Amino acid sequence: MSDPLVLFMPSGKRGHFPVGTPVLEAARQLGVYVESVCGGRATCGRCQVSVQEGSFAKHKIVSSLDHISQRGPKEDRYDRVRGLPEGRRLSCSATILGDLVIDVPQDTVINAAVVRKRASDKVIERDPAIRLCYVEVEEPDMHKPLGDLDRLKAALVRDWGHAVGFDRLEVDFALIPQVQKILRAENWGVTAAIHHDNGEARIIALWPGLHNEAYGIACDIGSTTIAMHLVSLLSGRIVASSGTQNPQIRFGEDLMSRVSYVMMNPDGRHAMTAAVRQAIDSLIGEVCEEGKTARTDILDLVFVGNPVMHHLFLGVDPTELGGAPFALAVSGATHLQASQIDLSVNPGARVYMLPCIAGHVGADAAAATLSEGPYRQDEMMLLVDVGTNAEIVLGNRARTVACSSPTGPAFEGAEISGGQRAAPGAIERVRIDPVTLEPRYRVIGTELWSDEDGFAEASKLTGVTGICGSGIIEVVAEMFLAGIISEDGVIDGSLAERSPRIVSTGRTFAYRLKDGEPSITISQNDVRAIQLAKAALYAGVKLLMQKQGVETVDAIRFAGAFGSFIDPKYAMVLGLIPDCELDKVKAVGNAAGDGALMALLNRGHRREIEETVRRIEKIETALEPDFQKFFVDAMALPNKTDAFPRLSAHVTLPERKQPQEGEGGRRRRRSR
Amino acid sequence: MSDPLVLFMPSGKRGHFPVGTPVLEAARQLGVYVESVCGGRATCGRCQVSVQEGSFAKHKIVSSLDHISQRGPKEDRYDRVRGLPEGRRLSCSATILGDLVIDVPQDTVINAAVVRKRASDKVIERDPAIRLCYVEVEEPDMHKPLGDLDRLKAALVRDWGHAVGFDRLEVDFALIPQVQKILRAENWGVTAAIHHDNGEARIIALWPGLHNEAYGIACDIGSTTIAMHLVSLLSGRIVASSGTQNPQIRFGEDLMSRVSYVMMNPDGRHAMTAAVRQAIDSLIGEVCEEGKTARTDILDLVFVGNPVMHHLFLGVDPTELGGAPFALAVSGATHLQASQIDLSVNPGARVYMLPCIAGHVGADAAAATLSEGPYRQDEMMLLVDVGTNAEIVLGNRARTVACSSPTGPAFEGAEISGGQRAAPGAIERVRIDPVTLEPRYRVIGTELWSDEDGFAEASKLTGVTGICGSGIIEVVAEMFLAGIISEDGVIDGSLAERSPRIVSTGRTFAYRLKDGEPSITISQNDVRAIQLAKAALYAGVKLLMQKQGVETVDAIRFAGAFGSFIDPKYAMVLGLIPDCELDKVKAVGNAAGDGALMALLNRGHRREIEETVRRIEKIETALEPDFQKFFVDAMALPNKTDAFPRLSAHVTLPERKQPQEGEGGRRRRRSR
Repeated sequence: MSDPLVLFMPSGKRGHFPVGTPVLEAARQLGVYVESVCGGRATCGRCQVSVQEGSFAKHKIVSSLDHISQRGPKEDRYDRVRGLPEGRRLSCSATILGDLVIDVPQDTVINAAVVRKRASDKVIERDPAIRLCYVEVEEPDMHKPLGDLDRLKAALVRDWGHAVGFDRLEVDFALIPQVQKILRAENWGVTAAIHHDNGEARIIALWPGLHNEAYGIACDIGSTTIAMHLVSLLSGRIVASSGTQNPQIRFGEDLMSRVSYVMMNPDGRHAMTAAVRQAIDSLIGEVCEEGKTARTDILDLVFVGNPVMHHLFLGVDPTELGGAPFALAVSGATHLQASQIDLSVNPGARVYMLPCIAGHVGADAAAATLSEGPYRQDEMMLLVDVGTNAEIVLGNRARTVACSSPTGPAFEGAEISGGQRAAPGAIERVRIDPVTLEPRYRVIGTELWSDEDGFAEASKLTGVTGICGSGIIEVVAEMFLAGIISEDGVIDGSLAERSPRIVSTGRTFAYRLKDGEPSITISQNDVRAIQLAKAALYAGVKLLMQKQGVETVDAIRFAGAFGSFIDPKYAMVLGLIPDCELDKVKAVGNAAGDGALMALLNRGHRREIEETVRRIEKIETALEPDFQKFFVDAMALPNKTDAFPRLSAHVTLPERKQPQEGEGGRRRRRSR
Repeated sequence: MSDPLVLFMPSGKRGHFPVGTPVLEAARQLGVYVESVCGGRATCGRCQVSVQEGSFAKHKIVSSLDHISQRGPKEDRYDRVRGLPEGRRLSCSATILGDLVIDVPQDTVINAAVVRKRASDKVIERDPAIRLCYVEVEEPDMHKPLGDLDRLKAALVRDWGHAVGFDRLEVDFALIPQVQKILRAENWGVTAAIHHDNGEARIIALWPGLHNEAYGIACDIGSTTIAMHLVSLLSGRIVASSGTQNPQIRFGEDLMSRVSYVMMNPDGRHAMTAAVRQAIDSLIGEVCEEGKTARTDILDLVFVGNPVMHHLFLGVDPTELGGAPFALAVSGATHLQASQIDLSVNPGARVYMLPCIAGHVGADAAAATLSEGPYRQDEMMLLVDVGTNAEIVLGNRARTVACSSPTGPAFEGAEISGGQRAAPGAIERVRIDPVTLEPRYRVIGTELWSDEDGFAEASKLTGVTGICGSGIIEVVAEMFLAGIISEDGVIDGSLAERSPRIVSTGRTFAYRLKDGEPSITISQNDVRAIQLAKAALYAGVKLLMQKQGVETVDAIRFAGAFGSFIDPKYAMVLGLIPDCELDKVKAVGNAAGDGALMALLNRGHRREIEETVRRIEKIETALEPDFQKFFVDAMALPNKTDAFPRLSAHVTLPERKQPQEGEGGRRRRRSR
C-alpha cells in the first residue's frame, strides 16, 4: 500500500507522504508556501490550513477529516489563547493519516486601487523576501566559546535553513551591538527577520521572544499621485491603502518641467528628492495609523515609478533623461535600505525598486507588465498606460515589445479650454443627440445625467466645473458620431444654421457643451489637441504592431487612472487604440501598484520581471522612420488607413471621405 | 614540439602556453597573482615582471631573454611617460616565445613592528579583497536602453569577471547618484574598486579614467597601544607605520577595569568606543601624511584586538566578557563598512575584523596564529602573547589548542615596586655577580651597561627611572641564579651578612638594585608577583601540553611587545615557558599586526584563519581540574615537577631541594 496522497490547493501541487508527516512538512517538501514564524511550536498560528472533504474525481482522491490527526494539546492551547477558527488546523501540528485535499488560505487578493472600476481580483501566491523565524538559541558554553550571534546564526540555519533555503547568514552590522541583550531578554528565544533575496540571506531585524507581525509597503510613485498599500507579509492581507498628491508638482506639473527645474536650479534635485521622500514617509504614517501598525514592523518596501520619479526618489539627477539618448543612471532592479532614503520604518528594512524598461518606459510600466503578464499568455495583449507619455507594451509568450509615445497632457485635461483633473464637478460622460445636437452629461459626484430630474440638486455641492480626460474623449467622439466634426477633425460650421450649439469663434467654430458659469465650450483647438494626443498614442501602438507583424490585437489593458475612467468604445471611436473585441478591452486600474504588490509578496515575481525586462525589445519611436507616417495617418478619426470591423459591430462610424476596403457601415448616423 | 614551459617565481607555478600568449594571461591561467588595473592597456604599470636568464636544472628549463617578445610600442610609451626600470617588462604586453622563468616582484615583506628584535622577514603572497579595474564603457544606445550603471557592470564582468572571479556585481547604493557624472568625465573610461570577499563582488568606489592607487590599513588595537600599517594594495608595500597610546587608558589601565567602567557608567561604552575610533582615525591621518596618501584612497581596513578591544571598537557592550561564561557578542569574522564606525576614508571602504577564538582569546591571538601558523607545520609550536592575560596557542598541522591565563599586569611592570612601562630610562637588562651579588644593568635609551665608562653621561637625558617587564624577568632570574632567592622564591636573609645589597624590610628581605634617586629595590612582594604571573602562564601552557599529550614543545614564539624584549633564556630560567632549544625560542614582535597585514593583502588568509579558528579547540582554564595543580607546581623556580634539560645545556640551574630525575648540573654557582 502506497503512502497517502496529499493535494494542496490552490496550487495543485501533490505528493505522497508517510503516515504521521506533519502537513507543514509535506507543504515544504512540495514547495507549497505556508507561512510559519514559530517554527512548528504551534504558537504563531500562521500556518493554518483547512481540509476539504469529499471525493475529487478529477484528482482521483478522496479526502476526509478522518485522514488528518485529531486536534492535539498544542492546537487546543493555541485555540484557547488566540482562537482557531472552525475548520482551521495548524499545519505544523496536524499530521497526515490518509489521502487529503488541503486548502492553503490565500488572503492576498489584489483589488484595483481605483474605486469605480474594479480589476478582476487576482490571487498572489506568497513567497516574500522577508521571513520571520523564531528560534531558541543555545546558551553560552565555555567549552564551545562561539559568540552569541554565531550561535544565533547556527540555530537559524539548523531550524530554518532547509525550509527557507539558506545555509549561511549575513547580519546587518547595526544589530551586532544589540544581539546580547535581545537574546537574554526572553530566555534565548528570539525572532529574526531574514531578508532572503538577490543571492544572500541576511538577518535584518531581531526581537526577543516570538514576534508575529511583519508588514510591507507597495508604492507607485506617479508624477501626480503617490499610491500606497500596507500589507501583512505573514497573511498577505492589504491592511490599509492610501494616496497623496506628489508634492513635486510645485516644481513642475509634468515630468519635463521637473527635469528642467533640476537643470535650472542647483539644489533642485535635492529639493525634489526630499519632497517625494517626505511625502512617502508621511503616507507610510497614514497607512500605519489606518492599519494600526507600528512603523518598526515594516520590513520590506517595493517602489515603482516612471524613470524621472524613479531617479528623483533614488536621489539621481534626471537631467540625462531630458534629452537623447535618454540614458538611465540605472535600469536594473535596485536593492537598498530604507534608512538610506530617510524612511522611518524598521532600521533594517529593505527597499526593492523594479527595473526600468527604457529611458521613457519606467519601473511603473515594468510593474504593470508584471501585473497583466502579456508574456505569460498566448494572446497578443496591448498594455497602455496613458500619462504625459503613454507607455505601451505589446506582446505574448513568444515576444514582447515596448515603447513610449509623447501624448502630451491633453488626455489629463490640460491644454483643453475647459479641461480639469478628474475630480468632483468634472464632466466625465457626454452624449450628443445626433438630430438636435443637444448634449447631456454626467459629472463626477453624482450618478444622474444632466437632463434627469434632480440633477441640479445633486450637482449643487460640486457644481459643474470643467471637463476631465474621459469627458473630453467622449465629447469629441460624440461630436464625430453626430457629424459635428469630420474625420479630419474640422468642426462643421454649416451646422450653426441648424443648432445654436455650434458657434463661430472667428476663423473656426466651437461646440457649446454647457452654458452658465462656467460655460464649457469645445473649441477647434481642443479637438486638435485630442487629435495630436491620440495620434501619438496610436502611432506608438501601430509601431509595436508592425514590430510584432500583427494587424490586430487580441486584448487591450488600460492601466492607470485615465484608463479607468474612459469608455473603451469611445476610445476606439476616436482611434486611441486599434480595433479589438470591446469585451477584451479592460481597464485594470493601478496595474503598476498591483505589480509592486506582487513583487512585495513574492520574490519570484522580482526575478520574473527582471528577466522579462531583459527580454523586452525596446523601440525608440524617435529612431523609427515609420513613426511619423503612422502619426499623420492617426490624426484622422478613427484612423486614415485602418479599419475597425469589431468596433463597427457595436457602433456605426461615419463614412469616410475615401472609404477603405473592409470598412463597416456607411450610415452617417448611428443608432444607440 | 610542445608549447613553451613557463615557470613563475616565487610561487613555482608552471604551465605550457602557446607561443604569443601574453605573460599576464599565462599568470592568470595558473592562478599566479599579478596585479593589473588597466586591464592590459599598458597604462597602469602594475603588472611588471622580470625574466630570469639561465639554465634552471632543478626545473628542467632554460630561460632566456630571447624567449620573450621584444619591447613593443606600448611598453616604450609607458617607459617614456612613467619609466620602466631596467629589466622589467609589462606582463600584459610581453608575450611568450619560448621557455621562461618569470619573476613576479613580491614587494610585501613583513618587518616586525617592534624595532629591536626583528622577526624573520616573511613574504605575503597577494590576493587582496579589493581590486581596481579600469574599463571602457559602451555609450548609451537608444536601441539598447540599458542604464549607465548596467553597462558599467556589463563591461566589468566582460573585462574582469574571469580574471577576478565574478560573474555578477552588486553596487553600493551611494554610488548610484554619481555614476553618470563619473562615466562622462573621462569619455566613458572609469576605474571601479571591486570588493570581492565573503561570497559577493561589489563596486564600492568609482573614479573617472585610470585610478592607479589603492591602499589598505592593518591595525592592531591593543589595550595599551594601537599599531597601524598603511599598505599599498597594488604593490603590497608598507608605505607608513605608526602607533599611538590607546586613549581608553583614561577609563582604566587594564581590560577588566574598562569593563567595570562600562558597568558603572551609563555612557561608558559609548565614550570608550568613540575614544578608540577617534584615536584610530587620527592614526590613519598620521600614516596618510607620512605615506603621502589621500584618505580617500584607503579602501580596505583590517583590525585585530583582544575581545574587549574588539567589542568596544565595534560598539558592543563588553559586560558579558567580565564574568563567566565570558560570552562574546560575535566570535566569527565581521564585515562592515568604514563609514559605519566613523572612519574618514573612502566612503565605500570595507572593514574586516578577524574572528575571536574565545571570550579571553581574541582576534589578536587569531591574527598571531595566522602569522606564525602552528597549524601549517609539523613542529609542535607554542605561541604566547603576554599581556594582562596571556593568550596561549599550542599546535601543529594535526591539532591546535588554545587558552588564556590570568597572568595579571606584573609582566608589564605594574604591581612591582619599582616597575614601569618599557620606555627610555627603564632598566631592561640586569646581571648579578654570583660572588659579590653586585648588580649591573642597562636602561632603554643607551647601549652601555651601568658599570661601563660613559654610562652616567649616556643616561643623563633619560635618567634611570624604574624597571620594565624584561628587566624584572632578568633581575628575578639573576637573583635565583645567584642564590639570592631559593626555588620557592624566598629572599635569603642570611646573605645580608655577606652583602649590603640584601636588606631587611621587617619580616622579609629585599635586594637593592639601584641606589640614589629613585632607588630601585626588589622586594619579596615583587618576587611573589612575578611568581604568580609566571605560574599562571606556565600552568596554561602545561594544560595545553596535557591536552596535546606532549611532554615537550619544538618551538616557542613570543608575540607582543613583552616578548620582544625579554631574553628567552631568562624566561626559561624563571619557568615562564617550558624547556625548549633556546634557538627555537623566538620573539616575533607584533605578530597580531603581521596577521592583520596578511588578512589585508590576501583574502585567502581570511578564509584560512576563519577555518582555523573553527577548528581550534578552546580550553577554559577555569573549568579544568588540573589547572590549579599546574599553577601550584609552577610557583617554584623554574618549576616543581618539570625538568629543563635543553636549558641546562646553556645555564647551570641551582640544584633543587629534592632534585628530580633528569635535572642537569648540581653546582650552586653558574659560570657564564
